[in-house]
This record gives sequence, C-alpha cells and structure tokens, in this order.
Amino acid sequence: MTRSQDCDIAIVGAGAAGLAAARWLEAKGVSVLVLEARDRVGGRMLNEPIGDGEIVEVGGQWVGPTQLRVNELIDELGLKRFETYDEGFNQFEFRGRLSRYTGAIPRINPIVLADIAQLQARIERMAKQVPLDAPWSAPKAEEWDSMTVMTWLGRKSHTSGGKAFFQLICEGVWAAHPSDFSLLHMLFYINSAGGLGKLIETDGGAQTHRIVGGSQLICKRMADELGDCVILEAPVRRIRSDGESVVLDAEQVQVTASRVIVAIPPTLAGRIVYEPPLPGHRDQLTQRVPQGTVMKCMAIYETPFWRKDDLSGQVTSDTGPVKVVFDNSPPSGNPGVLLGFLEGNQARELGQLPLEERRAEVLRCFARFFGAEAAAPLDYVEKSWADEPFSRGCYGGFFPTGVWTSFGKALREPIGQIHWAGAETATVWNGYIDGALTSGEHAAAEVFEAINDRRATKPAAA
Amino acid sequence: MTRSQDCDIAIVGAGAAGLAAARWLEAKGVSVLVLEARDRVGGRMLNEPIGDGEIVEVGGQWVGPTQLRVNELIDELGLKRFETYDEGFNQFEFRGRLSRYTGAIPRINPIVLADIAQLQARIERMAKQVPLDAPWSAPKAEEWDSMTVMTWLGRKSHTSGGKAFFQLICEGVWAAHPSDFSLLHMLFYINSAGGLGKLIETDGGAQTHRIVGGSQLICKRMADELGDCVILEAPVRRIRSDGESVVLDAEQVQVTASRVIVAIPPTLAGRIVYEPPLPGHRDQLTQRVPQGTVMKCMAIYETPFWRKDDLSGQVTSDTGPVKVVFDNSPPSGNPGVLLGFLEGNQARELGQLPLEERRAEVLRCFARFFGAEAAAPLDYVEKSWADEPFSRGCYGGFFPTGVWTSFGKALREPIGQIHWAGAETATVWNGYIDGALTSGEHAAAEVFEAINDRRATKPAAA
Repeated sequence: MTRSQDCDIAIVGAGAAGLAAARWLEAKGVSVLVLEARDRVGGRMLNEPIGDGEIVEVGGQWVGPTQLRVNELIDELGLKRFETYDEGFNQFEFRGRLSRYTGAIPRINPIVLADIAQLQARIERMAKQVPLDAPWSAPKAEEWDSMTVMTWLGRKSHTSGGKAFFQLICEGVWAAHPSDFSLLHMLFYINSAGGLGKLIETDGGAQTHRIVGGSQLICKRMADELGDCVILEAPVRRIRSDGESVVLDAEQVQVTASRVIVAIPPTLAGRIVYEPPLPGHRDQLTQRVPQGTVMKCMAIYETPFWRKDDLSGQVTSDTGPVKVVFDNSPPSGNPGVLLGFLEGNQARELGQLPLEERRAEVLRCFARFFGAEAAAPLDYVEKSWADEPFSRGCYGGFFPTGVWTSFGKALREPIGQIHWAGAETATVWNGYIDGALTSGEHAAAEVFEAINDRRATKPAAA
Repeated sequence: MTRSQDCDIAIVGAGAAGLAAARWLEAKGVSVLVLEARDRVGGRMLNEPIGDGEIVEVGGQWVGPTQLRVNELIDELGLKRFETYDEGFNQFEFRGRLSRYTGAIPRINPIVLADIAQLQARIERMAKQVPLDAPWSAPKAEEWDSMTVMTWLGRKSHTSGGKAFFQLICEGVWAAHPSDFSLLHMLFYINSAGGLGKLIETDGGAQTHRIVGGSQLICKRMADELGDCVILEAPVRRIRSDGESVVLDAEQVQVTASRVIVAIPPTLAGRIVYEPPLPGHRDQLTQRVPQGTVMKCMAIYETPFWRKDDLSGQVTSDTGPVKVVFDNSPPSGNPGVLLGFLEGNQARELGQLPLEERRAEVLRCFARFFGAEAAAPLDYVEKSWADEPFSRGCYGGFFPTGVWTSFGKALREPIGQIHWAGAETATVWNGYIDGALTSGEHAAAEVFEAINDRRATKPAAA
C-alpha cells in the first residue's frame, strides 16, 4: 500500500545537494521531505567497510582548501579532515618508462614540459573568460562550443606528449575522453574550480584532504539531523503539478508539497514522468548531459608497503588501463590501500569484463608500479558507477559540443513549481561535493523566496 | 485496475519499427502484443486533418525510390504514392538575396559552387569507408569521431558560402547544428542512405514521393491488420526479466512474454525502469544519443498561388528562421499548403516563443519568399516534436562526438531477453521510415531465431 505524506517542500535525492537543500530550508522553519531512491543516503558518496571498523570510499572522497562550503560544513557537523598521503616520490609512467618525481610536475622531456606549460597557460587564460552563471555568454562561446577538447589539443599542442598529458587530465577530471566533450565545457569547469591546478593537485587542490570516517559521513550526519524527513527506498517516478501543489509518486509513498527540488543529475531527472510534460527545451537538455564513466578499484594490503620504498602511492600513467593511483589507506595507515582509477574508455572497456579479469588487469598495473607484493592483496574492492541505477555514471555530467550554447539556460531555470539542484548545476566547484552543497542551498533559497513571495501576494481569506 | 495479458513477444512502441516487427512475427505464427504509449499508432508519423477530408502530415512524410522496403510495403498495404510538387523554379535566399533556379543546385557564385562540390566529393569518398553495421571500425573512426562536423567544415571549406550551405544541410537532414554532432556520425548516416544526394534531393532522393492520404496510413494499415494485438494508451514504465519470461508494466496493463523488442528511440528506451538494471554500458549509450530539434510549420491557403508564378514552393535560405520550404498541398492541389521547417537552433529558439509570435515569424518568411499573399493564410498548423512526451525530438537520434567509437556496439546488441529496434538502430536508411521498418524486421528475425533455438534445445518434458 502506498502511504501519503505532506510537506512544504519536497526534495528528490538524498545526495549532498538534496540534503543541503533540506537542511537549509529546515533551518528557516520550512517543512521538508527528502525522497531517496536507495536504501541509504549519500548519492555518489559511499563508505564501504573493509573490516576492523575501517572503511574505504568507493565514491567521491576528497575535499580541497578552496572548497569553502564543504569545509565549513565539515566543521558544523563535527567531522575531521586528514591529509591525503603525499609523502615520498610520485611516479610517472610515460611511453613504457616508470620514473619518480616530487611535486605536481613529473620530470620528463623539457620540450614536452614546455608544451604542457603553454597549453596550461592558454587554457587558464581562456577559462577566465567563461562566466560561471552563463557559459554561453563567453565572448567566444560559439567557437569554443563547436569543437571537442581533442580538436583544440590537436591544434594547440606541439608534442604528442603534451597531448597525452592533457588526455590524462581529461580522464582524471571528467572521467571522459577529450573527444567526448566541448572545449567550452572544459573551460567553464576549470574556471568553476578556480583554475586547472586546483583540479589536479593533491597539495592545495581538490585532492588535498579526506574525511576521517569517510566522506559519506557528511551526508549521514545531515540525514541524522533531518531524521524522519528523509524517506529511503522511495524512487520518485512521477511528478504532477497543477500550479497549486505538486504530487510526487514514489514507490511506496506519495508526497504532496507546494514545490519540489529535483536534486539528481540531469540525465536521471529526465527519466521522471512529469505531468504536465516538461517543455521540449528542458527535456532535450536532459538528453544531452551524459554522466562520465569511472570505476574505483582498491586493493587492500596488510600495510602500505610502498611507503617504506619512499613512494607516495601516487602514479600517473599514459599506459593504463589504471592511469591514476593514490594511497588510500585510512588515517592510521592500517591496512594499506591502493586506489586505482579506470576512467573514460578504460572504464567502458574493462567495465564489460568479468570481475576476475578486471581485477587481474588492475593488479597487474599495481605490480608494475609497486612491485610483486602489490599483486597479492588481502582483498579487492571496486565500484562501477555506470552500473548503479540511481547514479548511472560518475564523477558527474559533462556537456558535449553545442549543448552549453543551445541548451545551457535550461540547466538551472525553474519550471513552474519544479526547481533543479545537484553538482551539475553548481556555478562554483561544479561537479564536486562543494558544488553539490551550494547548488542545494541555492535551490533552497530560490524556493524560499518563491513561497514567501506567494504568501505575501496571496489575498486574505474571505 | 491493471489487466494482464500474455503473448510470445511483446513490443514497445507502435511506430513503424514496432509495427513492422509485430507484422513480421505474426506472419510466422508468433503471438505478439504491441504496447503503445499514445492513443494512436504511428510514432513520429502523424496525419492532421485540415478540413474537407484533407490532411497534412506534421511528422515524417516523404519516401524515396531507393528506400526499397517502404516502397514494397506501401504496395503490400494497397497505398499509393504521388510525386512531391517539383515544377517551376526553386528559390534560394543567400546573403539577403532571393534568386530562382531549377534542379538541385542554386545559381550562386561559382567559387562557392566549386567549394560545395569539393566538400561533397570529399564527404562521399569518406562516407563510403564507414561500415554500416560497425561505424566504429572505419579505418579513421577515432579521428572522425573526435571532431564535430563544424570542425571538419572549418578545416576543409574554402568559402564561408560553402560552409553555410553545409550548415543548412545539417539542419535539414539531422535537425541539428554542425557543432552538435560527430563527423563520423554524418559519414555513417550519409553512407546509410547511399550518398549525400539521396538525402537532400527531391527528385530521386528521400523527398521524391508522398503517400496519398498521408504517411501515417502505413502505420494505421499495419495496426489494422494486427487488430487487438495493438494496445493503445499503455506507456511501458518497467520491464522485468528473469531469464524465463519478461513482464512489462504499462499503465493499465501488464504483459508477460518470452522476449521483448523495445522499438523506441534510445533516449526514451533509457527512461524505462529495467529489472535487473541494464549494464552501465547500455545505459550510458542511451544518455548519449539525443533527438534532433524540429518544428514543422504549415500555412493553409485557398490555392497554391505560388504555382501560377512558376514557383515550386521549394526554398532554401541561409537567413531563416525558416530555412527550408516545400509545397505540401494534397495531391489535388487544393487547398494550397506551404510547409516551413524550423530546424536545430531555430527550433530551439522559436520553440520557446508563444504560438502567435512564432506563427508571425514563419509567415514573415513565407511572405518574403512568395509575396504578401503568403502572409494571410486560412489556417496555420505546427508541431514541435521536442514537446511530445513520447518522441521528445525529431527527426531522430544523432551521435555526438566520441559516442559511436565508445558506445556504438551497445546500440543493437540484445541484452538477455531484451532486443532493440527503431529508426536509430537501422543500418540502411538510418533515421528514415524505411530504416525503421527494416530495423523492426531485423529485430523480429533476431527474436524468432532466439526463441526457436531455445525451443530446439529445451529438454523434453519429463
């Protein structure tokens, strides 16, 4: 039997965006209900126990010092940060040769380094010209949106090494191939993070800190505060609105509210049945913002044995299939955890293999980087976000060519009583936990203003 | 109350593909049920009455002589073709100047004409190298899939006129801007039609013939033959499969079958809830094949008055917003009907205006092309396919960059008991009525083989 509940504002999705919206509204005295499809909160943030009370995060996990809102919230929620393990040498595998380096830049051919530097300088200069709230109004928006990142790299890189390095960056940051998305999107996203360095660096960038106990605690703590207002196992299948109220049909529960915030990625928001149907322009946007493709693969060892070889655990490889590796051990350093990413086409290809074959491929990479010991972990944990029915990809949605300029306005603009949130709608740190939080709070403020305007203009009862 | 029905093979969608599949299977003695979301059959083919027993087609309407299957079927169903009105002068509006011409090529600057010719020759040569059943295996597939059509035009065109002409072709054929899609997709699609000329020409190409009584009759006649096997107003929301049977939950009806053919565009197929969930690779494909954007706008006049000025009614304009016009009068020539297309960005922009403003814009174009008389029609009819909840765009799905090479295999490959059909899955005349029909018959044959294999290998009952 379906039960019915009422509230002022309904929220679809108990990820960081939906929970932040709920928390913001509740603090203003607005009653909320958050409908979550899964049997847990956290969306693309998920702790996975690995025994002895330790966990690894199979979804989003890092925060950086310039991500102001998430850091503030971590403090509000009484959580603690710790530094991503970053001691010793990083490794770089390039053209079959593995070498050690420190800092952000590997020691490679100086001609390639010079090429990377000029590409980065160009990108940073262009990125600054993309307005965060309206990327389509950048002076060269049409030109930049007419080409893929690959096309631009082909034009502006002078070395195949420089091109390969930026392909790695695309895979690492967008979980996509440079052929998959628009130059304008890359520039918007970089500007949204405050620069390319902020996206890719461990020390001072988006990978600086981790959360003690796991990033999912951010969502769990918010959900704890909200208590019964969060309804699990309630995938919303239909949203009906009549100008007066909205009715959400979820499995097992029907919720009536005055407005709704849909806080899930565009591609999933497009799968809900809306009555009346959404305008074509909004629907077609949701057809055009696919999720990236990434698998997080972790091997658990008794100890982080690479540390005694003075290795940080961080690897960047142009060979793959694992092209990016981190030491992902808990703060205690016990057990040792190596985290390898399969991103973009590597995730698409290896994602179709049986688990055993994929595991073997990942461990072969780890052994190449850290020696034979890495081939025999105690345990192996992985997560394919494209296979998750209520995520259908990670890290987030990206914009193929032509989409920002033709459909960008439909991303955030409310439609009647329906408002949009989620990391994909953020202007600052788009795609990150921080962006998800501010997007939720932005939608909450938008809704709050709308319901107060309406109250203010409502004629007095007869 | 939900009623239950059983059949051998369930089919989702009573467009040309679904109905062709049903008809093929029924002829083999296989019991079928076709579940159609709308209260009518025909999908993107739709007759709209304009009084006096006449109709106009607000969806797909033309067939060409090399579209073998649809022509065969027209005969089988006892329907008749007639020629698209193609007498007198065509008009070409270029850089604000309107000129008359005959044949396929307007009389413009010979340097621009030479540029168009060299671009077309290059395209035809490249297109022939794209295998229709596996575009990703073309020798230069990765390179061609890494760039937009716009990027390629920017490189290979020598005149802005040549570029503008191909932008018009992109809008006219794909209802998309050359920045929206992959060069590889353009080449595949052209090869699928047997050449660029076949796509754009009225005489001998895809626009040669129309159907007496309207193209939707193709679907209506097939549905009449199938009788009760077609269930209307039954949008399929969930497909559950357990290896033995599939259960389709539609609104009002539940159907149990041994296999299902999903004969709707990829972006809509991705919105059905599958249990167990589809593999990430297939789901991510459906996130990446958006529908084009087009509005058909028709003005109805007492007579086709332009014919007495020796005009064919056909216009191509680089100015727009109506860039392509046809004489769409019924075979009798009474009333006179001008058909104007809003395609790609024109449809996206004007689609958001109120009807009255858009109507005025369209009629302003008609008046520019055919004189003041065109500004005062008896009636005006239009259709925005992006706004239709069970189409969400026309003419069809297109592939942005990177999608064919990374996800192409997931387009047609059955998953367990679930098979795929629809114009987007066709190898020959992809995107056209003809392709929809052969895609349905292909899926039907695939299913037929699968159920017979299974019967053959089933152990005898104990």
